[in-house]
Amino acid sequence: MREKNVPYKHLFQAARYTLLSGGKRVRPLLTLLITEMLGGDTDVALLPACCIEMIHTYSMIHDDLPCMDDDDFRRGKPTLHKVYNEGHAVLTGDYLLTLPFELISQDHRLTSHQKVDLIHILSSASGWRGLIGGQVVDLLNGPKSPDELRELHLQKTGALFIAAVDMGAVVAEATAEVRRKLRSFAESFGLAFQILNDILDVTSSEELRGTEISSDVKNGKVTYLTVMGYDGAVEELNVHRERCIEILEDLPYDSELLKQFTLDILTAKMRED
Amino acid sequence: MREKNVPYKHLFQAARYTLLSGGKRVRPLLTLLITEMLGGDTDVALLPACCIEMIHTYSMIHDDLPCMDDDDFRRGKPTLHKVYNEGHAVLTGDYLLTLPFELISQDHRLTSHQKVDLIHILSSASGWRGLIGGQVVDLLNGPKSPDELRELHLQKTGALFIAAVDMGAVVAEATAEVRRKLRSFAESFGLAFQILNDILDVTSSEELRGTEISSDVKNGKVTYLTVMGYDGAVEELNVHRERCIEILEDLPYDSELLKQFTLDILTAKMRED
Repeated sequence: MREKNVPYKHLFQAARYTLLSGGKRVRPLLTLLITEMLGGDTDVALLPACCIEMIHTYSMIHDDLPCMDDDDFRRGKPTLHKVYNEGHAVLTGDYLLTLPFELISQDHRLTSHQKVDLIHILSSASGWRGLIGGQVVDLLNGPKSPDELRELHLQKTGALFIAAVDMGAVVAEATAEVRRKLRSFAESFGLAFQILNDILDVTSSEELRGTEISSDVKNGKVTYLTVMGYDGAVEELNVHRERCIEILEDLPYDSELLKQFTLDILTAKMRED
Repeated sequence: MREKNVPYKHLFQAARYTLLSGGKRVRPLLTLLITEMLGGDTDVALLPACCIEMIHTYSMIHDDLPCMDDDDFRRGKPTLHKVYNEGHAVLTGDYLLTLPFELISQDHRLTSHQKVDLIHILSSASGWRGLIGGQVVDLLNGPKSPDELRELHLQKTGALFIAAVDMGAVVAEATAEVRRKLRSFAESFGLAFQILNDILDVTSSEELRGTEISSDVKNGKVTYLTVMGYDGAVEELNVHRERCIEILEDLPYDSELLKQFTLDILTAKMRED
């Protein structure tokens, strides 16, 4: 069996290369923090949390391909297709898109209902209403107006944040009402996260962030800064961050840890992702 | 809503282009025939059947990419990346890999247990032990021996045939014992199917099959013909086809339709896929 697995070592190594290349793990941390806040079992939430990071990693690998955004560096390291080759990068992305569904479907600590909910959340956030739809818009000339920009980021960034939060709530068996409120929290979290990213893309130098200036800036794409200027973007960021905090304070749970995390992540300082 | 869906039209059109570009639909037909033979509801089996065709289609789109097998034609028509471009071909494949999990998880006619079983079957057949693993082996110089060739085809072709049959059995709520026997049937079906493909690749001209001579032949890859010669390959094909029929005759169901289908598909005559 050891002998037979040799070809796949290549695949596993490639998957590890991008999965373990740094980043703040914001999405899986959100899943775990939500489960903990709601009194659920964070040991059980760990697998769904890893799955959301796999989906995020697959989307980065495919988005970075020469036929997509054509990025040579991410987090200061060469992108996967530069280290291996394009064929292996496509396959490794496919692998990281497929594995979460296999892992969730066979996890014995989750009920069948939870598995179905988790898989539905993850697949719809990854599909044409989420990640893939956003990348299609991006590939077809990108957003043209503030509304289209907001819509795009709800898909490309927001969808996975909403999924991360909702998956944590499913593990903790939250009510439909709590899940709905937490999805609103996640939507504002995702928008604020993206606005901050756009701000950092132009205000941080390559040296400071350890990565290349984003291809969005290089390619002159519409971003929050081009649409509303620096001051407008900072104001919009503050509105969404405050909305996150308000939603958490309105919930009957001890949200101190999650609030601190939210303020840490959504406050403009040097960030790597 | 109509207006907002415009960018996705591009994605849906691309998905349709390959999904509806012909082919015999062997995998979904297997799902339906198995469900029918076992007395299950073929209306309910239709969605899982379509899902297996989507996975098959995604794998063709990605395998045909220039960075993979680099095929310009399939079934006599230009491959997707020739009609659109590589970026859209990668995305369309991702879409067709993601959609089945979303569709199965939200189908109200299936129980939660059935959904989890179907998703587990489909994701593991698509993953590193199945489709993706086979493509990794193929990309790393291909199989070197008859054993490796058999192993490769169990992954690249066999895994989806086994999944198609097992999904039909899950819809019909078959026992574990019946599912086990039907998976053996599917394994032999898949091997025979691949051997016949290898035979047709060299015996049919481009004109006859309406497609290019396979890139496997062009690239001098190891196939059943290079390993065991024409007569040996035909003999191996016959062995597996007979094994399929034996397994079906051993089951306490009316397998007449499925037997006829098996003989039709696995008998050397002009074929298009």
